[in-house]
Amino acid sequence: MRVVRFNGGRVGVIESNDVVDLTELEHLNPKRWPDTAMIQFIERSNSRIGSLELPDSAPRVPLQDVTLDCPINWPNKVIAFPANYQAHIEEQKSSKVGLISKYTSGGQGFFLKANSSLSGPNEPIRLPPVEGREVHHECELAIIIGKGGRGIAKEAAYEHIFGYSCLIDVVIRGKEERVMRKSYDTFCPLGPWIVTRDEITNPQEMGIRLTVNGKERQKANTRDLIVDIPTMIEMSSAVMTLYPGDVIATGTPSGVGPIKEGDLVASFAEGVGALEVRVESSAVGDHPVWDKPQE
Amino acid sequence: MRVVRFNGGRVGVIESNDVVDLTELEHLNPKRWPDTAMIQFIERSNSRIGSLELPDSAPRVPLQDVTLDCPINWPNKVIAFPANYQAHIEEQKSSKVGLISKYTSGGQGFFLKANSSLSGPNEPIRLPPVEGREVHHECELAIIIGKGGRGIAKEAAYEHIFGYSCLIDVVIRGKEERVMRKSYDTFCPLGPWIVTRDEITNPQEMGIRLTVNGKERQKANTRDLIVDIPTMIEMSSAVMTLYPGDVIATGTPSGVGPIKEGDLVASFAEGVGALEVRVESSAVGDHPVWDKPQE
Repeated sequence: MRVVRFNGGRVGVIESNDVVDLTELEHLNPKRWPDTAMIQFIERSNSRIGSLELPDSAPRVPLQDVTLDCPINWPNKVIAFPANYQAHIEEQKSSKVGLISKYTSGGQGFFLKANSSLSGPNEPIRLPPVEGREVHHECELAIIIGKGGRGIAKEAAYEHIFGYSCLIDVVIRGKEERVMRKSYDTFCPLGPWIVTRDEITNPQEMGIRLTVNGKERQKANTRDLIVDIPTMIEMSSAVMTLYPGDVIATGTPSGVGPIKEGDLVASFAEGVGALEVRVESSAVGDHPVWDKPQE
Repeated sequence: MRVVRFNGGRVGVIESNDVVDLTELEHLNPKRWPDTAMIQFIERSNSRIGSLELPDSAPRVPLQDVTLDCPINWPNKVIAFPANYQAHIEEQKSSKVGLISKYTSGGQGFFLKANSSLSGPNEPIRLPPVEGREVHHECELAIIIGKGGRGIAKEAAYEHIFGYSCLIDVVIRGKEERVMRKSYDTFCPLGPWIVTRDEITNPQEMGIRLTVNGKERQKANTRDLIVDIPTMIEMSSAVMTLYPGDVIATGTPSGVGPIKEGDLVASFAEGVGALEVRVESSAVGDHPVWDKPQE
């Protein structure tokens, strides 16, 4: 099942080439502030994966006629695992700014990206006017939590996953707090939809890939994750209660690099699809905190 | 105006010794998941500060008969400014784990705590069974955003503040990601209420203080903040859209130290009041990520 947010927060499921609009049927109200319609749908639907009925009475719209939104809005949190592919650790070691920690993800743990950094397939990445700094793409597989909990054992982890999506973790390189460097508005493109867990045969063997203007920059397989998917859920839920709709960015492989105005960035995950976003320049976002050199 | 969340998410305002319950009057529904009733109230009320009417028809309950909840639930984000009082930077420099960054908050920027770490005046801080680690208290003034926005100028910052509250930033010392060390459930006690901005004469001259079992451990004044309140709003909104209900933890002064089971921790902010919470041990929360020594 491919679940979409579309046309200003409406909730639907793709069937052949149509979006089946479940918004009214599920009594969801994306116009209420803050819009939590999709995470409400996920909260109710984790146990209905594979059995959700799409009644003939539900309105249908051709997929090509809708505007897809970021599939998750206003979750409890966006969790991110750094230093989670060895080849990326090696390339960062020899980069200008170097490594943040001597530990891999298994030793340093996770950080958070701001909910407000989430953006969808129809929103460009907006580069702030931060002079002398590189803004990099990081290709990642996203996990969407379906069933919340605390202290989730590795063995039970997959029951807590609602589905998977493509994610681009955008970052300003430098020595400032990583959370700030990764939390600009539009620095977390996600989408184009969520593919539910029943459609992914083996999440531990998923290919991911990123291209810039059609040229391959990153390519990896989730079998090379240092902290694997069940352990990410175990570790984050040891610390925090997870909630339906929480996003986990699973880490980036090697091949990260700068993006610039006009680029077309595409992030692929096997069995999910492709998320394609444009890069634009923005006049908003400079601040004296960025005035020192990148190093 | 003192604004409270109480009895399972209801929204009210304190008048003499009563809580005026505005939940029904404002058409709020704290029973809907996720509970965003208070942030909805804040979103509508920023422009009503000083003029909000409390009709005689609204139900009133004696303050002593209600259970106060964490005044904020499920915000867009909880922002935190590290290294924002010089005396705390000095004490950390000479601590076992040392400084995270060579920069003050003005150079390193901010990080995030998990929304799920928020807890209220009637919830204990629950210490995870993390052997060989110290868990520290950090006394902080909390800002609650009332009017959202991006690119907010310093000069306009105070119009965006809904009010102030007391916050305890709880942290496991060590070399892991700061965000993870600070995001355990109950590691962000907040409360006991929000005092609206009209009642604080000069936020740049507010005393803050923390005691453990009645003994003073931390004492400071917001005049000693390195990044001041308007600049925190300017910097965070340069990066991210701020939303009503967003929390900013403004940084801790010197005097941080370990807490243990049975302690009573009280955090005071001048003009706001006192937030008192117990410390308990929890069986939940250990994970191999904590197995290395604290350093």
